[in-house]
Amino acid sequence: MSNAEASLEHLFRVFTMPEHQDSTLSLIEKNLSDNLSDFLSRHVVAKRHSLEDIERDFADASMPERPEFVSAHAQKLLDTLVAHSVNTYAPTFIGHMTSALPYFHLSLSKLLVGLNQNLVKIETSKAFTPLERQVLGMMHHMVFSNETSFYDEYLHSAQHSLGAFCSGGTVANMTALWVARNAKLAPKLGFKGVSQEGIFAAYKAYEITDLGIICSPRAHYSVGKAVDLLGVGRKNILHNSDSNHSLTPDEALKIGRQFQAEGKDILAIVGIAGTTETGHIDPLDELADVAQELGCWFHVDAAWGGATLFSNTHKVKMRGIERADSVTLDAHKQMYVPMGAGMALFKDAHAANAVRHHAQYILRQGSKDLGATTLEGSRNGMAMMVYSSLHILGREGYELLIDQSIDKAQQFASMIEDDDEFELITYPELSLLTYRYVPAEAKALLSDPAHYRSINELLNRLTKAIQKSQREAGRSFVSRTRFEVNKYPDDVLTVFRVVIANPLTTVNHLRDILAEQKNIAVQTEAYQALMNFVTQTMATSAVGYR
Amino acid sequence: MSNAEASLEHLFRVFTMPEHQDSTLSLIEKNLSDNLSDFLSRHVVAKRHSLEDIERDFADASMPERPEFVSAHAQKLLDTLVAHSVNTYAPTFIGHMTSALPYFHLSLSKLLVGLNQNLVKIETSKAFTPLERQVLGMMHHMVFSNETSFYDEYLHSAQHSLGAFCSGGTVANMTALWVARNAKLAPKLGFKGVSQEGIFAAYKAYEITDLGIICSPRAHYSVGKAVDLLGVGRKNILHNSDSNHSLTPDEALKIGRQFQAEGKDILAIVGIAGTTETGHIDPLDELADVAQELGCWFHVDAAWGGATLFSNTHKVKMRGIERADSVTLDAHKQMYVPMGAGMALFKDAHAANAVRHHAQYILRQGSKDLGATTLEGSRNGMAMMVYSSLHILGREGYELLIDQSIDKAQQFASMIEDDDEFELITYPELSLLTYRYVPAEAKALLSDPAHYRSINELLNRLTKAIQKSQREAGRSFVSRTRFEVNKYPDDVLTVFRVVIANPLTTVNHLRDILAEQKNIAVQTEAYQALMNFVTQTMATSAVGYR
Repeated sequence: MSNAEASLEHLFRVFTMPEHQDSTLSLIEKNLSDNLSDFLSRHVVAKRHSLEDIERDFADASMPERPEFVSAHAQKLLDTLVAHSVNTYAPTFIGHMTSALPYFHLSLSKLLVGLNQNLVKIETSKAFTPLERQVLGMMHHMVFSNETSFYDEYLHSAQHSLGAFCSGGTVANMTALWVARNAKLAPKLGFKGVSQEGIFAAYKAYEITDLGIICSPRAHYSVGKAVDLLGVGRKNILHNSDSNHSLTPDEALKIGRQFQAEGKDILAIVGIAGTTETGHIDPLDELADVAQELGCWFHVDAAWGGATLFSNTHKVKMRGIERADSVTLDAHKQMYVPMGAGMALFKDAHAANAVRHHAQYILRQGSKDLGATTLEGSRNGMAMMVYSSLHILGREGYELLIDQSIDKAQQFASMIEDDDEFELITYPELSLLTYRYVPAEAKALLSDPAHYRSINELLNRLTKAIQKSQREAGRSFVSRTRFEVNKYPDDVLTVFRVVIANPLTTVNHLRDILAEQKNIAVQTEAYQALMNFVTQTMATSAVGYR
Repeated sequence: MSNAEASLEHLFRVFTMPEHQDSTLSLIEKNLSDNLSDFLSRHVVAKRHSLEDIERDFADASMPERPEFVSAHAQKLLDTLVAHSVNTYAPTFIGHMTSALPYFHLSLSKLLVGLNQNLVKIETSKAFTPLERQVLGMMHHMVFSNETSFYDEYLHSAQHSLGAFCSGGTVANMTALWVARNAKLAPKLGFKGVSQEGIFAAYKAYEITDLGIICSPRAHYSVGKAVDLLGVGRKNILHNSDSNHSLTPDEALKIGRQFQAEGKDILAIVGIAGTTETGHIDPLDELADVAQELGCWFHVDAAWGGATLFSNTHKVKMRGIERADSVTLDAHKQMYVPMGAGMALFKDAHAANAVRHHAQYILRQGSKDLGATTLEGSRNGMAMMVYSSLHILGREGYELLIDQSIDKAQQFASMIEDDDEFELITYPELSLLTYRYVPAEAKALLSDPAHYRSINELLNRLTKAIQKSQREAGRSFVSRTRFEVNKYPDDVLTVFRVVIANPLTTVNHLRDILAEQKNIAVQTEAYQALMNFVTQTMATSAVGYR
């Protein structure tokens, strides 16, 4: 590759001169604008490429010495990076929570980078700070429905914050539990608070030896990261034992009472509004009662399900979320905003002050700088993407998106239930569902207590084999996960996990995916192993009956 | 504003149809591409607008019900948001660490959003994961200069990670200290580690009552946030007392030894390579010795100064950084990448395993998913911006940028020193400097032990007044901060803080800024107050001499 020259003139051009209209980068941009879906279909190479092959293009740790021409570099990006990316626009990629985005985000992203504001403080963001506060206010209003006077008082108040905008749900969960921890271990006579003195001194001051977090086994792994980070310890995550994919209020109360009786206390109940694996929603209203009884914080992780509140049809499923002390939302999931738009919302406008901090050169006392109560420091103006989406789609637009996703997921569930060769594992309470491929011959043995474990083990291998082949073939993608279900006690099942998020996905796409999976299944070794076992078992049973 | 219709057809268009070439959003994009600097000059309104005025446009917490046309919304963004943003391209805005960006980032940002990959796991990022690993490897190599065989072994290893890409320096510092804490309070006989058991149990297992962090008073405020978050407690940040803007090894050792003698231990020394306020670099090599003696972690916060390593002329200032256990870098500072590109690098490829975590549906054991050792979860492909910048600018290009920034800062310092009406407070070790306006008449009294405090107090007010007026006038911007300096014992000075980062800033711009400040100064009430005091004091002294 020919090298550009490292001169001040060259640098000045790189900072000030736009590309020629016919440069490679300009052409990429034009193609993106003209038809993104087509661009991705043409450039993202679907065929098999091993990770090791791809890694070969990104193996050199030495720093490039000489500059490169922009066009040459752009061509390299197309060949080595774009070609081996994931086509998130593809309507048959229904395995993850990222999907096609509205077109206007392409242009807005350019505006965002052109402006390059820093939301940590008003001096480097100006109107972006009020805008971010308004976005937090709108989302707060959607969740908590406070009176107008509440928002008039707090939306732009320097001493208050309705939430924290952040890079994603993980940081949002951490922020919420950080606030909860600092509120629980607050300053009191003879103790300056956990923020100042740390956890060791705090537990001594409050005469406890542990703080527990109650949540279902379906809680996002970021809850574990949060309690690790916060010094609370992963062993203090208290799961309920039943495996119906949600947290039962009775068991939550029992767990909490027992923990409290042991000289420990409960930091928080984490209710989930749309689990990552199955889309289940915990009984939020009842859990709010339990949190009240235990005297602990109530956090709701609605990273996935929060957008359900846009739908007048389905928002009833979220009943009780308005009683949460804090709520996590991810606009880059069901709000179709580019990656990097998480939010932690606080019911009480004073709550975030438990983590307020200042510095001499920014975040001064009394300033409206948003960075004073956020976990992150410098942040970009991603709130603009949420702001624009809220306005361009409107609540009604989002309602349509949510409703059609859930509708399609339910249709897909029916399709699976109606098919002899599939087993629906979890029904889509929202637009997530799990299922697996089970040959009709194996189904009979699944209801036999003597055989279901062996069959499940073989099915687990088969599910994994199908999922990997399907992913590598590159035409479609479902993800997979593992969990226990009540139907098969003490067994851990490997299942296909489907997230209906892409509005471009049709029922026909879903039908094709099932057909493809059947096709792949019979070609796998795991299928042969399963069928051999089934045949042998049937034969043995027949011998037994003789 | 006329509303669009919430229909599935409308939604489908929003997801699939590009804007017409003559739509408002397309025109914004075209203007951004044709001449960003001109676009910002025309649209960012420089004149005074009070924050309260701006807030009025972002005051409504109710959710928009109906959709809006994209063009209408784009016009609203121009009028209410862009108009009241900060023009980060303006060469006279030398107060913060964000500046003009190379043009190609505009196009790349569009590509990034178009691809919308999620770096938490390979399944949703594919080639982006190897790319991010390579970027981390390149930066690791620049800092630690390990042998090629080291990178061959670890760059793409599923069991190792050379660092964590994150949203910014704050999260990078938190990640580094999280790893340090978990390494310090590691599992041992009868104790499962702080990650599992929490800090209270950990301190008991290790028989300590506190963990301290040693750093200079110039450390970034994120160090305080990190120890709060990690449950270590802000009171355990141990500052040296002298105010020469850096951490002296002798005092660090003394502080550490004393703390250890009290039944406590030292978690880490945090050396700073380019403080946020003055750009000073701690004596890293000597601090590495002290960390070794104390048996603690050595973290270097090089968020600002790390890019100095590109310069063969100036990298000697960073001597010792290669001995750090972890290093924070921000590519969105002196590497001219859009906001959101922080990195925590680990010298030891095994280090990050202290915070490794897994989940059933992603981050499985043995996968190369980058999310297994990061604080954040879902992340976008910002590493591509760093990758492209490294290639398009090359080390030589970055060297030129760094060298000319430091050179201009030194010229600016000379200009200030040569001017009777300014006082240079800190000399630019990198491209940051602080100074203040001091009328010649007041200078004489500053050297008088009987009067310097009163004068400094009046000067502090004057500096603040000038900085605010200058910011509000909108032609130029310097920031301000407050700290102690050895020259005026026990006094806290308010000073102008200048960051020379924008390559478009010329020496003439700097000259104009000084002229503007002189002009503003004499129009302030604070100036009158100062001069009255000076006149009276001189008169009284004259009386005294009579």
